[in-house]
Amino acid sequence: MFFASDNSGPALPLVMAALADANTGYVMGYGADPIMNEVQAQIRETFDAPEAAVYLVSTGTTANALALATLTSPWETIFCSRVAHIQEDECNAPEFYTGGAKLTLVGDGDKVSPVALTAAIEAEENRGVHGPQRGPLSITQVTERGTIYTLDEIRTLTAIAKAHDMPVHLDGARFANAIEALGCSPADMTWKAGVDAVSFGGTKNGCLGVEAVIFFDPKHSWEFELRRKRGGHLFSKHRYLSAQMNAYLKGDLWRRAANTANARAARLVAGLKEVSAVSFAHEPQANMVFASMPRAKHKSLFEAGAVYHIWDGSLEGDDPNALVTARFVCDWSISEEQIDQFIALAQSTN
Amino acid sequence: MFFASDNSGPALPLVMAALADANTGYVMGYGADPIMNEVQAQIRETFDAPEAAVYLVSTGTTANALALATLTSPWETIFCSRVAHIQEDECNAPEFYTGGAKLTLVGDGDKVSPVALTAAIEAEENRGVHGPQRGPLSITQVTERGTIYTLDEIRTLTAIAKAHDMPVHLDGARFANAIEALGCSPADMTWKAGVDAVSFGGTKNGCLGVEAVIFFDPKHSWEFELRRKRGGHLFSKHRYLSAQMNAYLKGDLWRRAANTANARAARLVAGLKEVSAVSFAHEPQANMVFASMPRAKHKSLFEAGAVYHIWDGSLEGDDPNALVTARFVCDWSISEEQIDQFIALAQSTN
Amino acid sequence: MFFASDNSGPALPLVMAALADANTGYVMGYGADPIMNEVQAQIRETFDAPEAAVYLVSTGTTANALALATLTSPWETIFCSRVAHIQEDECNAPEFYTGGAKLTLVGDGDKVSPVALTAAIEAEENRGVHGPQRGPLSITQVTERGTIYTLDEIRTLTAIAKAHDMPVHLDGARFANAIEALGCSPADMTWKAGVDAVSFGGTKNGCLGVEAVIFFDPKHSWEFELRRKRGGHLFSKHRYLSAQMNAYLKGDLWRRAANTANARAARLVAGLKEVSAVSFAHEPQANMVFASMPRAKHKSLFEAGAVYHIWDGSLEGDDPNALVTARFVCDWSISEEQIDQFIALAQSTN
Amino acid sequence: MFFASDNSGPALPLVMAALADANTGYVMGYGADPIMNEVQAQIRETFDAPEAAVYLVSTGTTANALALATLTSPWETIFCSRVAHIQEDECNAPEFYTGGAKLTLVGDGDKVSPVALTAAIEAEENRGVHGPQRGPLSITQVTERGTIYTLDEIRTLTAIAKAHDMPVHLDGARFANAIEALGCSPADMTWKAGVDAVSFGGTKNGCLGVEAVIFFDPKHSWEFELRRKRGGHLFSKHRYLSAQMNAYLKGDLWRRAANTANARAARLVAGLKEVSAVSFAHEPQANMVFASMPRAKHKSLFEAGAVYHIWDGSLEGDDPNALVTARFVCDWSISEEQIDQFIALAQSTN
Repeated sequence: MFFASDNSGPALPLVMAALADANTGYVMGYGADPIMNEVQAQIRETFDAPEAAVYLVSTGTTANALALATLTSPWETIFCSRVAHIQEDECNAPEFYTGGAKLTLVGDGDKVSPVALTAAIEAEENRGVHGPQRGPLSITQVTERGTIYTLDEIRTLTAIAKAHDMPVHLDGARFANAIEALGCSPADMTWKAGVDAVSFGGTKNGCLGVEAVIFFDPKHSWEFELRRKRGGHLFSKHRYLSAQMNAYLKGDLWRRAANTANARAARLVAGLKEVSAVSFAHEPQANMVFASMPRAKHKSLFEAGAVYHIWDGSLEGDDPNALVTARFVCDWSISEEQIDQFIALAQSTN
Repeated sequence: MFFASDNSGPALPLVMAALADANTGYVMGYGADPIMNEVQAQIRETFDAPEAAVYLVSTGTTANALALATLTSPWETIFCSRVAHIQEDECNAPEFYTGGAKLTLVGDGDKVSPVALTAAIEAEENRGVHGPQRGPLSITQVTERGTIYTLDEIRTLTAIAKAHDMPVHLDGARFANAIEALGCSPADMTWKAGVDAVSFGGTKNGCLGVEAVIFFDPKHSWEFELRRKRGGHLFSKHRYLSAQMNAYLKGDLWRRAANTANARAARLVAGLKEVSAVSFAHEPQANMVFASMPRAKHKSLFEAGAVYHIWDGSLEGDDPNALVTARFVCDWSISEEQIDQFIALAQSTN
Repeated sequence: MFFASDNSGPALPLVMAALADANTGYVMGYGADPIMNEVQAQIRETFDAPEAAVYLVSTGTTANALALATLTSPWETIFCSRVAHIQEDECNAPEFYTGGAKLTLVGDGDKVSPVALTAAIEAEENRGVHGPQRGPLSITQVTERGTIYTLDEIRTLTAIAKAHDMPVHLDGARFANAIEALGCSPADMTWKAGVDAVSFGGTKNGCLGVEAVIFFDPKHSWEFELRRKRGGHLFSKHRYLSAQMNAYLKGDLWRRAANTANARAARLVAGLKEVSAVSFAHEPQANMVFASMPRAKHKSLFEAGAVYHIWDGSLEGDDPNALVTARFVCDWSISEEQIDQFIALAQSTN
Repeated sequence: MFFASDNSGPALPLVMAALADANTGYVMGYGADPIMNEVQAQIRETFDAPEAAVYLVSTGTTANALALATLTSPWETIFCSRVAHIQEDECNAPEFYTGGAKLTLVGDGDKVSPVALTAAIEAEENRGVHGPQRGPLSITQVTERGTIYTLDEIRTLTAIAKAHDMPVHLDGARFANAIEALGCSPADMTWKAGVDAVSFGGTKNGCLGVEAVIFFDPKHSWEFELRRKRGGHLFSKHRYLSAQMNAYLKGDLWRRAANTANARAARLVAGLKEVSAVSFAHEPQANMVFASMPRAKHKSLFEAGAVYHIWDGSLEGDDPNALVTARFVCDWSISEEQIDQFIALAQSTN
């Protein structure tokens, strides 16, 4: 009953096997390994983007920070959701990598809304050198609250950005879960919808630690390579990043793993709906579930061995009926049995 | 006959096995995995440093840049050799991570000499706010030219640094090779010799990608953790870093692998000494050999399939007898047969 | 009828005279001029702070950015009002000087409120290395909307900050206007109320270009001096900064100039209150007035030669009666005649 | 007998008068003052560069750091003399403003030599992402040792830079002294000789504190304006910078002041040549003189009230005959009488 995070479970067996397979012979380092050629070809085919520049790094924070730094001047501001990973979970990495750009938090929800984005952009209008200059829009798909932008929503947002000459970045730490939920193609959700750069996540979906950064316009290539090296993110034994990503892409493993994770979360949601006193703080659309239940019930669940994060509210407090919200994340490896066991437990406790 | 780099060969089987072993069940991320506790205990025991702060990152550039940033204010200068990795091979990562500190290049050789260090330090004296302020000394062991500081040499340099209140960093990308060559203890070569922080390399000596950063004074801990996160270098699935380092330390695997690499290099040196027209640009003391030979001989060797880097001079040019220097690196995985084959080839060509 | 800004009028005659007086003979540069000793003594006496560290710079953005950089680590966030100068008018200077810290915008109004501050601080709680760490509180007095924190309000905010070990900075670009409006001592409004560092403005109140940065705890001195030099803000011919500030402080010139500016603004407010269709967007408490009036009236005033900035809304548009808000700033040099002329004009136009 | 620095004497009377003249009425701030238009026109005419972008800042460090930051990416290295102001006297300002670029010190002398420059550039060749990338060449005219590049020397250096696609910056803190010494036009010494950006000094030659940054290609304009603002270097009451520079340019005041300073230095040199035991460490070509004399003589001169900086060696020590080198700087304001008095003193002491 481990719902703490999609970085807590084991890596996919096929990914592990690819690592072992890659561990033979001498190869050139720093991205010049032959497996990287396969990765590049697979990404370009997957995204229907034959010119795309493709790079691998080992963490999601790095993918976001390097991609954004390449798109953002130090005197600009990046428009993003108030709950974006780049705002809440990266210890100022975007500010560090951009050399001191700002983040403008748009609206109050899990998503950037068109109205709020327009207002935020216009608030930076006509300021000359005094205010921060407009930089990129960064959206997160799946959002940090487990919801998903429709293709129309993405296209509306990118159209606003483009109208102001702003590039668009997509934080796809859970890219695969969104693709499976929407049933669309990677191209549809990215460049065809106006996205310029993508952090394409592997780590949360069954890799050990690898993310691709994809620029649909390769003009950013050389600058990105320098930024990656300068940040210490260029692996000498790069084949071990390549091997992970290569296996992840092959035979749509990435989609199958996400499909499983989403299905597990759906099973969890279906079960929780049957539990009295449980409600959902956000509509669960992928592999994350934000559910509220009485404090006493959380305590019982924790005592029984369930592991997950409290999100809003606290287990401390006198009122056992106070509603406390928690986040439950399913990865590819959680079994149906664990979920059913958890739901049974939730039903039987107060 | 692959002598290009110690990042070109495969990882150690025991390291790979440890990765596979670690790939089971749910564990907390971001360094809170139980294997990391073992790593910390092993490092502390290995260095006879029960209070040391120990962190893992995935590249050597990162280890150096984060360690130095923790020891250096932006208005300071880091004293190092002209051929230090931090100067020549990190695309300004130290400047980036320190927020704009400077590097002062000391002397002209592979090592920092006491005389040159004293002169460089004194040149920054009495400048008030105008000049860069004195920051740490950073030395590299094994040096970038395959030579090794004696313990006396290290102690002399750190004494000069301490006399000026400067902390000392040791870039130990090839730490294991130096320990094996000197036959001393890790404590002798570090804190007992006046070193404050170490980049303890794993990648070049048989890991996939892991380096430990060790501070003998744990006061730097929290700042380092924030710098690591902000740089994108904190792994969510940290267990895969821990597992590599844990296996690397266990049963002195790290020393055994380095011992093998050093022995292979010694075999290469012994063989090359028998080859006419070959001389050594630096005294080979660990696993790197800088050898000069006629241009024509290099061409023959390359044509026969040998792989290594030309260091000084060029294969282009009319004179077949012009001396050109190359770097040959041996890792744990290169076989005696390959070396013998290479030497035979060197002997048989012009 | 020039109400555009308090940086548009001429400098005070006594300040100009002091510049001329200072222009004789040879003196040491870089802050070692004897006039700076007088400045330091005057500031310490004015603030009843005999240990205070005192430095001069030439712009308000510099004073704020350097003071905040000295108080803020790169992984922290600065809490400030959404309309703070450091957020809206410094082109990311705080982010630049801190090396990539973040600004957390507190609440929606001209002031930081205790409730919003507490909520913002608590939102950054218990995040480990993931979120930005809590840095200083920065408040602006006079606020960017012409209102003034009471001493009680300041003390309440600083108490919240202190309870979370956060230092407090006060952006006093219009410090003098606030002191005159409150009728309190500089000590009361700063260190006695929990403020640790002050940007003490001179430029907007009759100097050519000089601001003092004051740290009540001198432990920050040397770091500040290095930051100032590294930023290019240490004047070689420092006497010309010193002379301005010295004259500004002497005989309470700074208070007298601000008193005049405040009185002029009060006269403007009194007059505008008599004009129909004029209302105030914020309560005018110092030398800035935010007044709303019909679009057509603005157009008439501009045509008649009045100069000021439109703040909310636009002169473009069909509806002549649409309310548009403008900012009117009075400095020491604007005459009562100009104000009366402007009011007469406002009354006579539609 | 004050030879400490050209930032120690008073400002030129015409510059002071211009400040006073500018102190009337209301004008727009932040560079939109009408005097700035005159400055721009004068600079463009002076440099025969009708398209040049012209900006004012208040210190030489700022002019250099902002100009170089505009020309340099963070992963590049700036080639300069070992004794350049940007290396020795700016507390890492170039590293700060460029976001962490490096400085490559070329050769050992006061000037960058073509041979050393070529070697330094080639040392950064073919390194891929690993080494620092080649950034601009920065030369200093007058050099920090009082010598002057001939036009041929400048052209040779810029040709080397251009051949490697490197832009060229000229630190002209003593631009005027060089022009007077060479007798050439500003265009000859800059863009006609291959220079792309100039720090055109005013402060050391009779202004209070103003330097112009000139880009001959205006494509850099907007970025420079943002960098200037972000650095806190955009003056709100910009007219007081404009007024200084305007007066400085008018009627060739800048050349006349430098001519006087150079003539005073020549008188000093002529006099010192008559003093036994005095020799020159560098050939004095402008307004700085580096002279060596016995320790005892320095002590006598200091006791008699002379003020200047010891450069190499120390007044401390037993041997009264030990040679100690000092720097003597003449500005426009030093009188012939002072010089003659100093020489007489030097002749009469041991």
